[in-house]
Amino acid sequence: MDEKNFLQRLEKIRGRRELATTDLVSILDLSRDEVDLIFNLAAEVETFLKGEMKKVPLLKGKSQMSFFMESSTRTSVSFELAGKNLGADTVNINVEKSSMNKGETLLDTAITLDQMQPDIIVMRTSFSGAVHFFARSVKAAVINAGDGMNEHPTQALLDLYTMQKFVDKDLKKKKLVIVGDVLHSRVFGSLSRLAKMFEMDITVSAPHTLIRPHLEAWGVRHEPNIEKALAGANIVYALRLQTERTAAAFVPTVREYSKTYIINAARMKLADKKAVVMHPGPVIRELDVHTNILETNVSLIPEQVFSAYCIRFVLLWLFGNKRKHKQIAKRLFKA
Amino acid sequence: MDEKNFLQRLEKIRGRRELATTDLVSILDLSRDEVDLIFNLAAEVETFLKGEMKKVPLLKGKSQMSFFMESSTRTSVSFELAGKNLGADTVNINVEKSSMNKGETLLDTAITLDQMQPDIIVMRTSFSGAVHFFARSVKAAVINAGDGMNEHPTQALLDLYTMQKFVDKDLKKKKLVIVGDVLHSRVFGSLSRLAKMFEMDITVSAPHTLIRPHLEAWGVRHEPNIEKALAGANIVYALRLQTERTAAAFVPTVREYSKTYIINAARMKLADKKAVVMHPGPVIRELDVHTNILETNVSLIPEQVFSAYCIRFVLLWLFGNKRKHKQIAKRLFKA
Amino acid sequence: MDEKNFLQRLEKIRGRRELATTDLVSILDLSRDEVDLIFNLAAEVETFLKGEMKKVPLLKGKSQMSFFMESSTRTSVSFELAGKNLGADTVNINVEKSSMNKGETLLDTAITLDQMQPDIIVMRTSFSGAVHFFARSVKAAVINAGDGMNEHPTQALLDLYTMQKFVDKDLKKKKLVIVGDVLHSRVFGSLSRLAKMFEMDITVSAPHTLIRPHLEAWGVRHEPNIEKALAGANIVYALRLQTERTAAAFVPTVREYSKTYIINAARMKLADKKAVVMHPGPVIRELDVHTNILETNVSLIPEQVFSAYCIRFVLLWLFGNKRKHKQIAKRLFKA
Repeated sequence: MDEKNFLQRLEKIRGRRELATTDLVSILDLSRDEVDLIFNLAAEVETFLKGEMKKVPLLKGKSQMSFFMESSTRTSVSFELAGKNLGADTVNINVEKSSMNKGETLLDTAITLDQMQPDIIVMRTSFSGAVHFFARSVKAAVINAGDGMNEHPTQALLDLYTMQKFVDKDLKKKKLVIVGDVLHSRVFGSLSRLAKMFEMDITVSAPHTLIRPHLEAWGVRHEPNIEKALAGANIVYALRLQTERTAAAFVPTVREYSKTYIINAARMKLADKKAVVMHPGPVIRELDVHTNILETNVSLIPEQVFSAYCIRFVLLWLFGNKRKHKQIAKRLFKA
Repeated sequence: MDEKNFLQRLEKIRGRRELATTDLVSILDLSRDEVDLIFNLAAEVETFLKGEMKKVPLLKGKSQMSFFMESSTRTSVSFELAGKNLGADTVNINVEKSSMNKGETLLDTAITLDQMQPDIIVMRTSFSGAVHFFARSVKAAVINAGDGMNEHPTQALLDLYTMQKFVDKDLKKKKLVIVGDVLHSRVFGSLSRLAKMFEMDITVSAPHTLIRPHLEAWGVRHEPNIEKALAGANIVYALRLQTERTAAAFVPTVREYSKTYIINAARMKLADKKAVVMHPGPVIRELDVHTNILETNVSLIPEQVFSAYCIRFVLLWLFGNKRKHKQIAKRLFKA
Repeated sequence: MDEKNFLQRLEKIRGRRELATTDLVSILDLSRDEVDLIFNLAAEVETFLKGEMKKVPLLKGKSQMSFFMESSTRTSVSFELAGKNLGADTVNINVEKSSMNKGETLLDTAITLDQMQPDIIVMRTSFSGAVHFFARSVKAAVINAGDGMNEHPTQALLDLYTMQKFVDKDLKKKKLVIVGDVLHSRVFGSLSRLAKMFEMDITVSAPHTLIRPHLEAWGVRHEPNIEKALAGANIVYALRLQTERTAAAFVPTVREYSKTYIINAARMKLADKKAVVMHPGPVIRELDVHTNILETNVSLIPEQVFSAYCIRFVLLWLFGNKRKHKQIAKRLFKA
């Protein structure tokens, strides 16, 4: 009874614990204890998702909507597949063909989708803060799969999980160097917050035009010189230059940016001997990270994708019974 | 045994009744008795679809195709989710990527899809009458999810169901005022026919350029003055100005149209005290209906979406074993 | 126990046979014995897929990805539906919205998708050879659903299966005339190879601009005169003029091409009395094949679509446990 054993082990790890939050909008919606629980469950899920039989009825009879207003492969597919592995019924909302193009407001889209009684809505949008607004407007549990330049909490979870697995179970004081377009990066928004929760030592290396104001308030050091930044680094986290968010206008040329900040084998010699390279994907080869890193074991980028699948499986399970039963305050006016 | 009880109650309501039609192309394919049966079943389905476990194997082993040649969110998602809740295997035909763009005729698309033995095809198209043609060309049961400016029968069903639920079980002589772009509206095509079947009192309020010729033959009164039309109304049904069907060319300006016909709180004071506002969605705020109606309980628009989900669940079940077994007359020439 | 009987019959036909290949990239990945096995299984599947209950748990807990970088209806839908009938969890990768548009390489897309542990990836691409490359880069079993102008092996299987069913169980020496755009046709690439395996007599009829160089090396005769080519033909296989691959530039005008090569009732009188017409679809009426053939029993085109569904059901089953467990050589550089 492989499935039965798996379920028993999952339930044993979970105990009767429920997440305090009904939605995952910001990584700060989770406590450190809750993050640890998620990681412990994900470790158990790994073997299952690599097995011959990847389906359990934990979310049977639940429905999960993917509402992606921006492009995605790895995020949307990992959520959809994990949902199906859990037995949920999944539907994808095709935004290009949706009512929003006829002039519907986001609030009305939220109310409409919620009337179909979804248990979970996984949402990506280019508008910072829109997921927060959406979560308050629906009964479904909402998971933020990236909102504008704000947060991407499931990415941060899978990143820290991957670091714990391949770098050190104890990440305290480990040196994390985040390289590149910090300004437009929602990945940075969640990653820096979670890394701080784990008491990591965080340095940002990017030109002055691509960092955020008041970085010091985030508890993050800025070192524009990549060579200096890499000294002693345990994890080098390269970000993609987000040309779809006009990032190219913030550097003299993309080629010069790449020459100055690309992570390659020569530069990695400046880091700790066991240092690893991570990236949220998709990688643009020879722009963010060089092939002489990508095609070696120094790169944890493929491992991040597998972590994503496991972490999202766990999150969907934990948020699967979070549909809010209280009345949503959608009646603003009195008739 | 919640599921078992639910199935027993459904079967009890249904008895051994089968719909006379094999396809739902026009609302007139259904008799009044059949409509009542559908509504009784939908009322039973409501609790189930709001429950913790929304899946039954009523259509297990059946396949359902969504063939949408026009944009849709609420319609396609409610059909897809309801099909999955019933245990059907659902596939979406992506028309932008389909063979029709390579020059395939609609007949050949019909023959091709039908060879994959779907039990149900849910179809939307911009061509009035194309669903009728399609239904005659395939063995699958075909459900019209909107064809051009002709009909949208499942919308009419969910609308009347919502009226019965929130206005009065007996709709006879109740005053229904349909406001707006009646000319391009397939919703009007089905709604006016079904409202007549329920002996409602129907008034259309729209400029002369947006009504249909010979409205009197539909048993429908035309009152271009919105204030006069609203007097004593029980249900005010606002239609969307279908700018994708060139409706903007039929009014002096969209702004003037909106000023003249928008449903707002001030105007609703002219209607019956308990009057409600409905709309097929998507609503364009401040154009069709004002926020001071939308965000009050006068608006039944969210409730219509939930009705849609329940009604479509029932329809899919009833049409799930309607695949025609007789030979389709597709051989026109003798070899 | 209909399902139980069906499964027993399938297992009995299969015995303990496993395909030698882990991926279906070229039709030559299969031996004649393996093709016969696939056909015998498909014959058994026909009744099942025409039945009331089209679902078995043969691939329960497996996941199947559709990665279509080119348009498709019949191919993608038949794979998706067959996968669902087998109980697999299916996901469609939307390439327009995918990471490849952000600049990700095909190799990185392969590595990413494979980390989500799919058992099968069904892939279509406009790049000849890309499926071969992809198959070597992932652990999932890869099925080629068409790669550029190279091969489309599942089409060849369903075509030969259809010929055996409707023309003659023994296809040896049967005259197959392939008409049209042989140059750009991946269907030709696989069909000619498989027809040769069955020792058919193969003639190509097309203008000199639309054939491939060194056709004689394929064991294929070229007869540009369609009337001469059709003499004694048992199967006339018309190809679509692939205007999306600039085929129109290879003929004086599309109209002249059509006049010279269209398959119509008059021309079919030159063929064997029992000759049939086939086409991989989508048919462009009055360009490739005339309506006076399409709407008669001479056309096997609808039957090909049903064969596609059955053959793909069998292939998915046989490739469902082919995920490679050996390490993929993705680490090219040493750190």
